[in-house]
Amino acid sequence: MSGFTVCGTVIHAPVCGEVEVLEDALIEVDETGHIVAVHLAGTDDYQELRRRASERGKLQLLAAGQYLLPGLVDLHIHAPQWPQLGKALHLPLYGWLHQYTFPLEAKYRDIGFAEAVYTSLVDTLVANGTTTALYFGTIHLEATKRLADICLARGQRGLVGKVAMDNPEECPDFYRDVSAERGLEDTRALIQYINALSGNETGLVKPVVTPRFIPSCTDEMLAGLAEIAGEYGCHIQTHCSESDWEHAYVINRHGRHDGQSLKEFGLLTNKTLLAHANFIDDADMDAIGQAQTGIAHCPLSNFYFSNAVFPARKALDRGLQVGLGTDISGGPDPSLLRNCSMAVTTSRALEEGVDPDADSDSRGTPGSRIDFREAFWMATTAGGLALDLKTGLFKQGYAFDAIVIDANVENSNLILWEGLDTHEDMLQKIIYSADRHNIIRVWVQGRLIKGDNNS
Amino acid sequence: MSGFTVCGTVIHAPVCGEVEVLEDALIEVDETGHIVAVHLAGTDDYQELRRRASERGKLQLLAAGQYLLPGLVDLHIHAPQWPQLGKALHLPLYGWLHQYTFPLEAKYRDIGFAEAVYTSLVDTLVANGTTTALYFGTIHLEATKRLADICLARGQRGLVGKVAMDNPEECPDFYRDVSAERGLEDTRALIQYINALSGNETGLVKPVVTPRFIPSCTDEMLAGLAEIAGEYGCHIQTHCSESDWEHAYVINRHGRHDGQSLKEFGLLTNKTLLAHANFIDDADMDAIGQAQTGIAHCPLSNFYFSNAVFPARKALDRGLQVGLGTDISGGPDPSLLRNCSMAVTTSRALEEGVDPDADSDSRGTPGSRIDFREAFWMATTAGGLALDLKTGLFKQGYAFDAIVIDANVENSNLILWEGLDTHEDMLQKIIYSADRHNIIRVWVQGRLIKGDNNS
Repeated sequence: MSGFTVCGTVIHAPVCGEVEVLEDALIEVDETGHIVAVHLAGTDDYQELRRRASERGKLQLLAAGQYLLPGLVDLHIHAPQWPQLGKALHLPLYGWLHQYTFPLEAKYRDIGFAEAVYTSLVDTLVANGTTTALYFGTIHLEATKRLADICLARGQRGLVGKVAMDNPEECPDFYRDVSAERGLEDTRALIQYINALSGNETGLVKPVVTPRFIPSCTDEMLAGLAEIAGEYGCHIQTHCSESDWEHAYVINRHGRHDGQSLKEFGLLTNKTLLAHANFIDDADMDAIGQAQTGIAHCPLSNFYFSNAVFPARKALDRGLQVGLGTDISGGPDPSLLRNCSMAVTTSRALEEGVDPDADSDSRGTPGSRIDFREAFWMATTAGGLALDLKTGLFKQGYAFDAIVIDANVENSNLILWEGLDTHEDMLQKIIYSADRHNIIRVWVQGRLIKGDNNS
Repeated sequence: MSGFTVCGTVIHAPVCGEVEVLEDALIEVDETGHIVAVHLAGTDDYQELRRRASERGKLQLLAAGQYLLPGLVDLHIHAPQWPQLGKALHLPLYGWLHQYTFPLEAKYRDIGFAEAVYTSLVDTLVANGTTTALYFGTIHLEATKRLADICLARGQRGLVGKVAMDNPEECPDFYRDVSAERGLEDTRALIQYINALSGNETGLVKPVVTPRFIPSCTDEMLAGLAEIAGEYGCHIQTHCSESDWEHAYVINRHGRHDGQSLKEFGLLTNKTLLAHANFIDDADMDAIGQAQTGIAHCPLSNFYFSNAVFPARKALDRGLQVGLGTDISGGPDPSLLRNCSMAVTTSRALEEGVDPDADSDSRGTPGSRIDFREAFWMATTAGGLALDLKTGLFKQGYAFDAIVIDANVENSNLILWEGLDTHEDMLQKIIYSADRHNIIRVWVQGRLIKGDNNS
């Protein structure tokens, strides 16, 4: 790949709660896919740089109505649950896992099935603008290797974990690591496989240590996984205080909340991502903040499996690194833009309350709302922060992970009204109305993986 | 138009809470666009009828992975608010009306602007599968006539109302009927215009008496509108107990709830549609049920402007005719399928509650949930029932208002997994994942208004 320069209307969110719009900005990308510089229109060298890029045939000019946004960062995806998206939404978490999800995940001993599903999923997420994806696989080493292969082949920044779950009291016989030892061994094998993958020299695809959640794992497994994560400097992902049942289970078994328990096991690091975290209290938030651990807020899933809504406003006000996750298939929508709008929606539900029979003074929790600016920051900048990866922003030294949203596409629900819509208005409309057809280009680390430069 | 026969997998919901799947059903449509008969595979004349239709070149055969569904019925749309979709979501109802919505609606004195917006809106709704649409226009007679014209030209079943709002205490000077008399006169003029529209002999487009809501109208206006509705046998639409502010306003002014007040004025008929109705109590429900008045549940909008969630389960259990509305632009999504999934989601929010700090025993309202079957019934069958129109079902004598959903479309988030997904599963997936690109054909009263018969 040789370097290139993109010129157009850029929208990103360097600061939580603020949107920065740069009209006619020039973004210079080098041959490694990283941003060399962002030049604002009107600055000293701007015209000269633009002329030079154009002369070298390296200028990609966006049209009016097209917007360059950071690629979206999805912090919580169960890859094997993709065929189940939109189904099996009627049971609480525990029953859902045992009746639907574990039986489905057990199928991934079949490599052909895994390849078909994972290819479909990665392609769908890329088409929806997800440039960085944090995946739970299954317990199966081989199937999970294929998921890493597919991310690499497709050019998606994929963080991939083999699920560790060995607790015979909470995991069925047909779907469980046969022992902690074996689970740890396979986790290690996946890390070594991904780190040695040919074509992955830049570390586009990364291994993730993945205890499903505390209920699924023995203490031996949890301790062993922490050791492996430390040894390899890996990311860690798990669920945290997701539902009444799960939260109560951990209190009952360990005498403390998930966050505190994960901390004791050494699983709360600056490269850890906690999915959901609905029931964390002030002490948990302190521990998570001190460890610079990330949270994957999964707003749509909250309504179906969490028994409550994550207090996003409160967590943001405490400075926590809260990004967004689709939680496929607990969250029945693969679009992170859609989950962006749902993050606003869930926060409004929390602020206003929902029960019309309750007194209006006591119905909701005032001060809980976030708006589209915070939600957009969560879907981009915060995703990068939470993962400790230089993505989610247009800034020197960051990977050029980006999408182009086109409001001129025909057959679209996203409509720009000249004279009525500012660029910031358009961002809000994009969050509520853009679909995959409006996403005409997707780059990861400078590589174009959807669309073409001439569209 | 000559008659035709469609053959394929049909999904509809004759009974609330149940989904009926008819494989290889034959639906015979006559030259007026009405359903002559639905023949099930395996019945006596089936093969003969199918052969005959095929020989006459009148058989439209759906492929595997294609589903014939009733056209969607959107019971609450503010047509002039279309340019604002996805914007201005941060204020409560009262402030939102005065700061954003009334100024926008006032622009529709400009007929060119009205034509541009209304064309864009009707096209968008048709593309998203909405075959029947109940529209609020603005106070402007001419602009509202154009909306009726556009529905007729596009072939959408449109029910169109000129908004009546004359109360100087609640409506701004720049956007108000100058008097009750004038508002009533213009309402009458719109009814006469639509009833006499050339090409509208079958009554595809219908006039609707449209008091915005009680706060906007003087008692003189309310009484006069009821009289006009009676005189012409018209539909009526208005808002009912939408938010804390609105609900309290009516109690304060009339000493009773919206439902009771509308009843007193003679505005609660079997052709009335009440939008929202979040705060109706048992007595209101009784009055609404006795009058066979319809309710437009607008689930997404609930979270933004209603301060609470409509108790859909309770209303359905009482036998009320509850359909769905997008509430454009209070609800920031034009897709009724999306609002179908949101109807499930809001009901789950009500059932589970949202506040993680609340005790799990007191957090929600048990027994509040609906599932995709009820939501689908609301979006189709109930819409027809609420409007007293023969649409929303595949049944002899009903209009052939229908859409074809294609799960084979490329570049789609809707994916059919052979061997894993039943037809009923696919309906659920359609509700959560289909977008306008999956809707490859739309008919209204037998006229194909999106797609072609050979796709």
